[in-house]
Amino acid sequence: MSITYNIGKDKYLNWIVAETDFVSENSGKFETIFSLGNGYMGLRAATEEGSPGEVRGCYVAGLFDKFPGEVTELPNIPDWTKIGIKLDGEVFSLCTGKIMSYSRQLNMRDGELVRNIEWMSPAGKKTKLVFKRFVSMCDLNVAAIKIEIRPVNYSGSIEILSGIDGQVSNSGVQHFKEGQFRMFKDGTVSVTSRTQESNIGLTVAVKHLFSIDGKETTEAEQVRTGRRQIFLSSGHKIVEGQTFCMEKLVSVYSTRDTEFKEPQFGKAEERLDKELEKNAIEKLRDAVNLGYDGLFNNHLAEWNRIWEKADISIDGPDFDQLGIRFSIFHIHQMTPAHDERIGIAAKGLSGEGYKGHAFWDTEIFLLPVHIFTSPETAKKLLLYRYHLLEGARKKAKENGYKGAMYPWESADTGDEVTPKWGAVDIKTGEPIRIWGGEIEQHVTCDVVYSIWQYFEVTKDYDFMFKYGLEIMLDTSRFWASRLEYNKSKDRYEINDVMGPDEYSEHVNNNAFTNYMVRWQMEKALQFSGWIMENEAEVWTKVSTKLNFSMDELDDWKEKAGKIYFAIDEDTGFIHQYEGFTDKKMIDLSKYRGKVGAILEDYSWEDVVHSQVLKQADVVMLLYLAGDDFSLETKKANWDYYEPITLHDSSLSAGMHAIVAADMDDVEKGYEYFQESIRIDLGKNMQSCETGLHAASHGGNWQAVVNGFGGVRITGDGTLRINPRLPEEWNSLKYSLTWHGVRCFVEVNKNKLLIKPLFAIEKPFHVEVYGEKYLLETSGGVEIAYRQTR
Amino acid sequence: MSITYNIGKDKYLNWIVAETDFVSENSGKFETIFSLGNGYMGLRAATEEGSPGEVRGCYVAGLFDKFPGEVTELPNIPDWTKIGIKLDGEVFSLCTGKIMSYSRQLNMRDGELVRNIEWMSPAGKKTKLVFKRFVSMCDLNVAAIKIEIRPVNYSGSIEILSGIDGQVSNSGVQHFKEGQFRMFKDGTVSVTSRTQESNIGLTVAVKHLFSIDGKETTEAEQVRTGRRQIFLSSGHKIVEGQTFCMEKLVSVYSTRDTEFKEPQFGKAEERLDKELEKNAIEKLRDAVNLGYDGLFNNHLAEWNRIWEKADISIDGPDFDQLGIRFSIFHIHQMTPAHDERIGIAAKGLSGEGYKGHAFWDTEIFLLPVHIFTSPETAKKLLLYRYHLLEGARKKAKENGYKGAMYPWESADTGDEVTPKWGAVDIKTGEPIRIWGGEIEQHVTCDVVYSIWQYFEVTKDYDFMFKYGLEIMLDTSRFWASRLEYNKSKDRYEINDVMGPDEYSEHVNNNAFTNYMVRWQMEKALQFSGWIMENEAEVWTKVSTKLNFSMDELDDWKEKAGKIYFAIDEDTGFIHQYEGFTDKKMIDLSKYRGKVGAILEDYSWEDVVHSQVLKQADVVMLLYLAGDDFSLETKKANWDYYEPITLHDSSLSAGMHAIVAADMDDVEKGYEYFQESIRIDLGKNMQSCETGLHAASHGGNWQAVVNGFGGVRITGDGTLRINPRLPEEWNSLKYSLTWHGVRCFVEVNKNKLLIKPLFAIEKPFHVEVYGEKYLLETSGGVEIAYRQTR
Repeated sequence: MSITYNIGKDKYLNWIVAETDFVSENSGKFETIFSLGNGYMGLRAATEEGSPGEVRGCYVAGLFDKFPGEVTELPNIPDWTKIGIKLDGEVFSLCTGKIMSYSRQLNMRDGELVRNIEWMSPAGKKTKLVFKRFVSMCDLNVAAIKIEIRPVNYSGSIEILSGIDGQVSNSGVQHFKEGQFRMFKDGTVSVTSRTQESNIGLTVAVKHLFSIDGKETTEAEQVRTGRRQIFLSSGHKIVEGQTFCMEKLVSVYSTRDTEFKEPQFGKAEERLDKELEKNAIEKLRDAVNLGYDGLFNNHLAEWNRIWEKADISIDGPDFDQLGIRFSIFHIHQMTPAHDERIGIAAKGLSGEGYKGHAFWDTEIFLLPVHIFTSPETAKKLLLYRYHLLEGARKKAKENGYKGAMYPWESADTGDEVTPKWGAVDIKTGEPIRIWGGEIEQHVTCDVVYSIWQYFEVTKDYDFMFKYGLEIMLDTSRFWASRLEYNKSKDRYEINDVMGPDEYSEHVNNNAFTNYMVRWQMEKALQFSGWIMENEAEVWTKVSTKLNFSMDELDDWKEKAGKIYFAIDEDTGFIHQYEGFTDKKMIDLSKYRGKVGAILEDYSWEDVVHSQVLKQADVVMLLYLAGDDFSLETKKANWDYYEPITLHDSSLSAGMHAIVAADMDDVEKGYEYFQESIRIDLGKNMQSCETGLHAASHGGNWQAVVNGFGGVRITGDGTLRINPRLPEEWNSLKYSLTWHGVRCFVEVNKNKLLIKPLFAIEKPFHVEVYGEKYLLETSGGVEIAYRQTR
Repeated sequence: MSITYNIGKDKYLNWIVAETDFVSENSGKFETIFSLGNGYMGLRAATEEGSPGEVRGCYVAGLFDKFPGEVTELPNIPDWTKIGIKLDGEVFSLCTGKIMSYSRQLNMRDGELVRNIEWMSPAGKKTKLVFKRFVSMCDLNVAAIKIEIRPVNYSGSIEILSGIDGQVSNSGVQHFKEGQFRMFKDGTVSVTSRTQESNIGLTVAVKHLFSIDGKETTEAEQVRTGRRQIFLSSGHKIVEGQTFCMEKLVSVYSTRDTEFKEPQFGKAEERLDKELEKNAIEKLRDAVNLGYDGLFNNHLAEWNRIWEKADISIDGPDFDQLGIRFSIFHIHQMTPAHDERIGIAAKGLSGEGYKGHAFWDTEIFLLPVHIFTSPETAKKLLLYRYHLLEGARKKAKENGYKGAMYPWESADTGDEVTPKWGAVDIKTGEPIRIWGGEIEQHVTCDVVYSIWQYFEVTKDYDFMFKYGLEIMLDTSRFWASRLEYNKSKDRYEINDVMGPDEYSEHVNNNAFTNYMVRWQMEKALQFSGWIMENEAEVWTKVSTKLNFSMDELDDWKEKAGKIYFAIDEDTGFIHQYEGFTDKKMIDLSKYRGKVGAILEDYSWEDVVHSQVLKQADVVMLLYLAGDDFSLETKKANWDYYEPITLHDSSLSAGMHAIVAADMDDVEKGYEYFQESIRIDLGKNMQSCETGLHAASHGGNWQAVVNGFGGVRITGDGTLRINPRLPEEWNSLKYSLTWHGVRCFVEVNKNKLLIKPLFAIEKPFHVEVYGEKYLLETSGGVEIAYRQTR
């Protein structure tokens, strides 16, 4: 087996994921799960020397470009990681010669990727090589590689060919113009180029430092240019047993960076490019002064700060501990916490999948993590939606609606960027039409759900007054215009949509969608009423801006109350959509655990017209609006839907874990949790080549904190903590921020401890097992543990 | 050594070039020299299974596209050659396991590339594999691959993954939009897409046929799509000793094809795409009916026809024979003989180098081959220039001149497409400015030189009346406006140009340019006079079209006579340009034989200001206008320029071979010939990764026929044949077409035989050793051989 989880010892126990042998077919998996990032840029873990089947990739958050005829995506920036190494005349490659020992380790505590190799060349020369790299968490524009090479049984030459390779693309799609390659007197090389459609400038600059046994070498570097490439070649003499060390320091700047916001955008392109280059070169000089180790120490300090706030400690099976850290690690790597104009991509910054677009994944799966642990980041992510309101308004208008209708897939402008065509259908031979952009409309209420959750947790009234209210009103206005009145039944319907389950499309009255729309309209009404009463000035400002009339509120009241929600009163059974239970059944046993396998036997049309779910749909609702449904209702629906759900979406297992825990079936919940934390990190080597399943990591966090940890917000806005730990766990520790106060939470089989870590200005209640406890001192509260509610 | 030349035996003696072991660093070399083509498309010899460092490439002649910010180029079309093979679960790769035996052979007689491998997998399973491919010379839209696989020591499975991969690019530059991927019921898959700027449609369609021991297998193929990819996967069971055979048949159509000329261009894009796809699918069905072997037989018959006309037979060192065939083979593969709208690219269709642009290489280096052996093709190549006259007129106008000024680099419109920037200068760190497009103006007189040569050889008056005269007049008009009058010296000058030697730029009065301009203006005057006298109607038509006044002819007469040509009357020394001999000298010993090495020590500015030549300049003139210069003049100039010429251009050695032979220094000429035929075919593995040096192959042909063969056209338009064979050769045989009659020529150390192969309608003279012989019967003439003139 190529992957192991138990390499970390002592302070690194359950902090390290390791690849133990080199199998080139696995490259995609490890490139993804070993990807490094800092929210500004993300780097796949393709090796310095390259290998067959690799997909090299580095992406800058928010830097989008549209290739003709396609939807916009995150371009792969010029590659600064490729380093050719010749050892005494032989090319170093893991595909030739013999690998005597091999290990590549992702150290999540330190945010560093380290590869240790002992390699015997085809000619029999043995060499020890160590490759290290990190993407600085404290200096977002900086990254670094360090390579140590020690000849074991020979003396000879080491030749290095390293620089910047602009030939990389997005699976063959090139977004960057060739640009300007330069070499500076100090040996720095750079490229400054612009994207072809969005005209965003980017500079990548690199500089090498060489030493032997710690003594700087003075070999001159020769420039080698090719099309879209600038490399430096150098040769070094080394004696057996000596250690050659190479550092490659990198800086990356783009005109999308926050420092290039107004007024610089007014400047002429060429001048801006010069400024960009200047920033990159200056930053690189600072980096060179610090060197790899100095830069790394600063980076480490920042990770320590993050872990202090974000770590979850599980006293239980090691893999559970490692897995949840893996999720937290990648969530922090992928989140553009520095820039409120950027969302979280569905694959983070770890691959080309979903083109860097943001989905409801951000609001429903990832935002809770930030809302509860770093609300300042959560706020920025919600501001991203605020800044794109214009795009949402445009989309509504284009579709004949009012207000703001968020795009199913979102990039930099708020325009709908869902591609219209997917893979070729096995049966028809034609590409499958992707309808998400047109009919997967629930994203709009998901945004509002998240805003409300943020508000409940933070009580950030300022945000609500300035941004939240406006989004709530304008999206409710959209829904009001979207609702279809069924006169014969005197009800409002939402027809021709897709709910969360993407193995159904063009359905009428999807229960999830209808329920969430009703919820959001009622919430908007309720909050508007409160604002009008308590913050008249705010109301005037926002309603004026939106040209909002009171008649609209009346209209909403009328409509919201009559939105159709198909639940059988007797049994509590919720119809996923109208007519769902009339569809045919398929024997799914063959397809369980094999993502997408059903489409190898059935056409898309077959699947769409069957009772088969890709992912949680009604079950999803049982979580998000959990307190609105009785245990019996939950069970009735679980029993129907869970057996026909394939979990072919990574958004499914984590949600099932939570709902199972909510139903006190912790064992089942734990099974789903086990499935969910293995989606990317598990031993399946074909699970995530095109990037991490970002949402699943949010789902893992929620399964732990909201599921087993039992954290929820009650209808009256109280923090509720009803933990029920899996049998396998002795304890669970994490911190949560509530109303601005970070609290430490510890649960074990004896007690639940909730302890504020800072002084509380405004005391608040915590509800545990039906009782409310006032948190007012820094001492916290301690309650005896119960396994069930 | 990885390359051998003596594999061919019996009927294949000196017809086969072989790669004898697999070294992935050599992939570029072999991809180029083993490239296959038919003038319509060209295919690099990247392997089916792929290898590190490969550059896969297939190009369609004349199908140009411009990526933003770059000059137009031949896009790499979607790859139809990639075939993944799994042998009993192990990926077949020459980088893993063990290669027990290996040979890849280019069979030039048959136009087929064949690879024989015995491979042992990492698990110890041995398999024999044979890969064959050809690009049909008789059915330009068709190509095919055949793979035979025989397990030697196991029974098991063979898995194939094969289809079309649109992720390929031009070194990272993507020209095609994603397009439409389709699978048809019969298992054909296709992609139809369009270039992003030029909006040219292209369809690639492929179909697989499988058999075991000759019996068709019926395993179903499963479609696998990825971004820009459509593949079919299939699994086959095989028993030890059986032979699995796979054929992959391909058709390629583009809206640039001649059948899509008017009026179809008026149709809507979508309809045209459908038609394109239909053509490709129908053609592919025909191909499937014939199968690999049937298609190959037709292809072979066409190559037989070509060789019958084009082969040169040398009784001498085997390599000389092989080398000249290699040149002829590739010249025929790269020449778009089917379409008069397309030129010959400087790298043929064998690589990305020079972006598929045509230079003076076509007229001065390659056209003589066609003029003397397939004048109908020569005519089409000259028509290419005729069709682009509008572009040449535009260029003249943009530069403030009259008439027609041909672009230094030419693609599909006649617009100047020379890039402005090249590699980074070693000294300044900035990219080197490429001035060719602005100042390398001699291409315009080179075109006229070629037209005149075509006319002399063919006496194709019709061509001259319809096209040739117009080009001669409009380009002479350009030169008349281009000439600069130096009042103080009462002479006309051409300043700020680059001659053939590209290590000089911004020079005044380049001897080659000034001489050729004078020659072309005088030729235009002379021919105009003849036309006016003998073909008044033609004159009226063309002069009216060009709005030509007789004053212009007077102006030309005045100017041509006064064009400055810097020759020292006493010594015959010709100044390459004004002030050349004042420039500083560099010790060149270090840089001989290492193309471009001088630029690793000297900056571009240093080189340009030194007496160092990249290639023949004055020496070039001594060939093209050879009869105008005495032997003494030739020697004087040779002795000065030859020692300071680095031959860093592939256009140099062949020309030196000819001029040496002209000076009766056959030994020196043979040395240069040896150098020239090794430029691509030699053992240097880094000689031609980005494509063949097309011109050098024309140079090789001319070195043999015009150099050692002594073929020339005298001032009065007589065919002269003054052979002088290298000592190493016993005989030389070839055929030549003169005034429409193909003649067989045989030279040995005893005699020269010139024998018409068809009846001669209009007898003509051949001049040999100063005597004229009348060729009037099919018997021909035989003359005793002399080694010197």
